[in-house]
Amino acid sequence: MTTLALSALIRPMVEPRLPDGLDVHWFASREEALEVAPLAEIGWFDFNEKEPMIETLRAATKLKWLNSIYAGLDFLPMDVLIERGITVTNGAGINAITIAEYVVMGMLNIAKGYREVVRAQDRHEWLMDSPGKRELAGSKALLLGYGAIGKLIKPRLEAFDVDVTVVRRSGGEGVLTPDEWRGKLGEFDWVILAVPATPETDGMIGASELAAMKSDAVLVNIARGAVIDQPALVEALEAKSIGSAFLDVTTPEPLPEDHRLWSLENAHITMHLSGRAQDKMFKRSADRFLENLDHYLKGEPVSPVFDPKLGY
Amino acid sequence: MTTLALSALIRPMVEPRLPDGLDVHWFASREEALEVAPLAEIGWFDFNEKEPMIETLRAATKLKWLNSIYAGLDFLPMDVLIERGITVTNGAGINAITIAEYVVMGMLNIAKGYREVVRAQDRHEWLMDSPGKRELAGSKALLLGYGAIGKLIKPRLEAFDVDVTVVRRSGGEGVLTPDEWRGKLGEFDWVILAVPATPETDGMIGASELAAMKSDAVLVNIARGAVIDQPALVEALEAKSIGSAFLDVTTPEPLPEDHRLWSLENAHITMHLSGRAQDKMFKRSADRFLENLDHYLKGEPVSPVFDPKLGY
Repeated sequence: MTTLALSALIRPMVEPRLPDGLDVHWFASREEALEVAPLAEIGWFDFNEKEPMIETLRAATKLKWLNSIYAGLDFLPMDVLIERGITVTNGAGINAITIAEYVVMGMLNIAKGYREVVRAQDRHEWLMDSPGKRELAGSKALLLGYGAIGKLIKPRLEAFDVDVTVVRRSGGEGVLTPDEWRGKLGEFDWVILAVPATPETDGMIGASELAAMKSDAVLVNIARGAVIDQPALVEALEAKSIGSAFLDVTTPEPLPEDHRLWSLENAHITMHLSGRAQDKMFKRSADRFLENLDHYLKGEPVSPVFDPKLGY
Repeated sequence: MTTLALSALIRPMVEPRLPDGLDVHWFASREEALEVAPLAEIGWFDFNEKEPMIETLRAATKLKWLNSIYAGLDFLPMDVLIERGITVTNGAGINAITIAEYVVMGMLNIAKGYREVVRAQDRHEWLMDSPGKRELAGSKALLLGYGAIGKLIKPRLEAFDVDVTVVRRSGGEGVLTPDEWRGKLGEFDWVILAVPATPETDGMIGASELAAMKSDAVLVNIARGAVIDQPALVEALEAKSIGSAFLDVTTPEPLPEDHRLWSLENAHITMHLSGRAQDKMFKRSADRFLENLDHYLKGEPVSPVFDPKLGY
């Protein structure tokens, strides 16, 4: 009989729909998780914190398949996953829709100066002109990262007549390769970071990339704070050598109350909320798990697979 | 020789591109306008206020073609235009792109509760959850008004996987006729008003329409304040019988400082800025005028034509 150790967080959505003939253990605490983990062939070890997830994984010596609602699992011990040959399915794409919507929202807000409109309403003041006068139509965007999120961002922006250039290893029309985009940075009104967190993307936007951007370019980051050299960004925003930044992610998170970014007029901080701005994540994650469980029990492949050798 | 009386506002964009052989008079003040208007066969009588435009038109006894940058010309004396048989071209569509962009921005902001994010940043507070948890994807919108603006709103929303239903006299698939939409109001997450200002659309959204909407429905108005029975709307918002309203237009404009709408938590006031959130209006208007002038001088039709009998 196949043994499963699953977080009680997902129980209401999963339990009624599980097939018969499984040995299912639900855990609601760290202690319970550590108790059942060693028995499990299939595990869903999600907690709100990283530490108990790591601990539970280490204790799961018989684990063959690990599932998670989270997309970014680079905090897990990759060596454990590789040594034990564990198949990992993650939440890539589960909240991709809302994140793609959030990106377009951020760009529109900056284009129209909407933050100033909110503040004016709070003062009961009727503005006579728009604080922002940009149109998305006719502008050019560079999209770094073309995974589940990037693939949803592109058609949404294209519906606004934004000319979207994607960076991909494979190249092609309207595509730049990883060694081409830096040389073209000065051509774009929007630079959107939707890359996975890997050693390769760490600090990929630094002082020289910021210096190469247009003086009114907008940098949008929904990837990870570490993708940007943040002190260099603060300098560029203060010097207005770029237009502004829409930052869903920062270093660290939460951002300390006295951090310079909070009060820069051209920094828009959205507190890693983009993925949380929906209420369908658990539902979608449960649907996906049950579909994968069906495949797994039949010996068929599961997806999407997280590769511990790549970290995404 | 054809005589033109044109506002100096547009002079820098038009003068260098005018064909030869025309008798062109530029005016920079109300007095100058009144002086040259009686000579003009072609007039572009735009001022920032309505009164001098009306006055100049009345004085233009030989006028055959009136052009304007504005879309809404219902404030002009329609009887004068009709009696003198004046052809009128207006600015319909000139700022349609930015208005369509503004509508989607407003919907996204409400979906994600973005206004609360702005306020939290102003307090340097890292929110732990999103104040709004809606996705546009999978939602349903009713679009009232399918002119230049409506036609741009629809494909933008469809790119977000919004199911858009349009109201048109002609009917058809995914279309409701003017006597059908009221009966279906309860099906929509978004009700978007993009209708022209006519006696027919005056007060078209009143207490009974508001009562028929879903309790979390969002009403978006980029048409005219008068399209909504505003006291009824204030009541509906206070009672939370609808979700919220995104109001680019209000009655009156500007909204008085002590008006109830300013401080309602579910009223979003954008001060008739949607059309101003771009910097291409003069350029587009000049391009269009010069193209129409070419047609006019050849005896060909001009467009878009404003019909004084319909008021749009």
